[in-house]
Amino acid sequence: MPPHDTEGTPLPGTLPRFTSEERLDDGVLAREFTLGDIPGTLWTPESAAPLPLILMAHNNGMSKNEPRLVARARLSAAYGYAVASIDAAGCGDRPRSAAEEQARADLRRAMRAGEPVDGIFESFIGPLIEKAAPDWLATLDALLALPEIGGPVGYSGWTALGIRLAVADPRIRAAGCFAGGYVPRAQREEARRVTVPLLLLLQWDDEGNPRQRALDLFDAFGSTEKTLHANMGGHTGTPWFEREDGDRFFGRHLK
Amino acid sequence: MPPHDTEGTPLPGTLPRFTSEERLDDGVLAREFTLGDIPGTLWTPESAAPLPLILMAHNNGMSKNEPRLVARARLSAAYGYAVASIDAAGCGDRPRSAAEEQARADLRRAMRAGEPVDGIFESFIGPLIEKAAPDWLATLDALLALPEIGGPVGYSGWTALGIRLAVADPRIRAAGCFAGGYVPRAQREEARRVTVPLLLLLQWDDEGNPRQRALDLFDAFGSTEKTLHANMGGHTGTPWFEREDGDRFFGRHLK
Repeated sequence: MPPHDTEGTPLPGTLPRFTSEERLDDGVLAREFTLGDIPGTLWTPESAAPLPLILMAHNNGMSKNEPRLVARARLSAAYGYAVASIDAAGCGDRPRSAAEEQARADLRRAMRAGEPVDGIFESFIGPLIEKAAPDWLATLDALLALPEIGGPVGYSGWTALGIRLAVADPRIRAAGCFAGGYVPRAQREEARRVTVPLLLLLQWDDEGNPRQRALDLFDAFGSTEKTLHANMGGHTGTPWFEREDGDRFFGRHLK
Repeated sequence: MPPHDTEGTPLPGTLPRFTSEERLDDGVLAREFTLGDIPGTLWTPESAAPLPLILMAHNNGMSKNEPRLVARARLSAAYGYAVASIDAAGCGDRPRSAAEEQARADLRRAMRAGEPVDGIFESFIGPLIEKAAPDWLATLDALLALPEIGGPVGYSGWTALGIRLAVADPRIRAAGCFAGGYVPRAQREEARRVTVPLLLLLQWDDEGNPRQRALDLFDAFGSTEKTLHANMGGHTGTPWFEREDGDRFFGRHLK
């Protein structure tokens, strides 16, 4: 793990600082925290024993407060996991460089014009992963230091980041990845080095995620235990039962 | 439905005749029955209410007594379904014509020699489906006449037969198909007319079931709700959790 002293990533040993908490109606405790410059949310069910942990990241650096991510996190917490999400460097509301702003503007323009977007994605998602991963690993260190979290650790969500984290940190023991979202060349290569049990979700007609590329990625993963779940529809059409299937996948490997 | 007066298929109105019963240690009642010339097994859990029914067929006309099928049937029965399997005309231990025996001998020889087998499969699986389907539909009629079975009805197993039955009989409300097993041209065409919720299981390196052909078949199904589950390994390597996932799939549509 690189030293955490750039871009506001906290130094090792830093603990999360809880800034607010709310008991939700399903009994889950939602706590906002900061870890250095990193804002995060931790959802935990009531539990006497230390909990397994799921790191949950939204595609392409979208905000940890995005309602679909929050809904998934709460339900998985109610199922018996500590669930954490952060806005890593460059993600969510964190500051962006002028180059990142420009790339995102270029992307929106190209998508509206129906032009190819691979080059643009590669130009900013690749560096975004490099920048975001240390924040996630620092968060993992900090959360595992809490008495209510015992591990093991799973990862859920953004595929490219999941590949990076699973390769970088052997504490991650299972990964549930959503094939939506651009996977940079570096992570397509790294997929062969991922060996933990894997569940890859694919929307068959995902407009932003060519089907064959997702099938090739599934084939490339080095895991001997890997499962693909494909469903009909576009990027946001994942059926509700897949969230439960995800909990069951983690249940096989984290409990 | 064609009249059931050829090949020993019973006439409409015929009820199953139970010939033996055994209470298994999981509380499931396993009963052998005959329906005209058709031998069958019915597995039922203890239940005050009429049960939903799953018709369970093994690939390519293999016996209803094959241990893997029996194990699946028992577990699904324990989960809350009536489960039935039969040896339809031409299947299991039922008499085979000289042409069928010859085709199966040709198939074994060709597989040993590593020769193409598509033509041989097509020559006997196509007619086998035509012959077997009426027996399954007669069985469905007869079982739904029993007080302990109320429906709705699902189908599980042999893909080609499942396509034929789902197209032929609207009482079949959900189909869980295993992509292993040759799918004749007629059923590849008919797949577009299958509109019930579908779960297709694929073994990624199934030696008898080319991956791309299975993916094309999944794409062809007419169902708006269809899910593909792909796992690593060969034909018989389906992981245990897929059986549970199958019960949950049927639970969404039959309960």
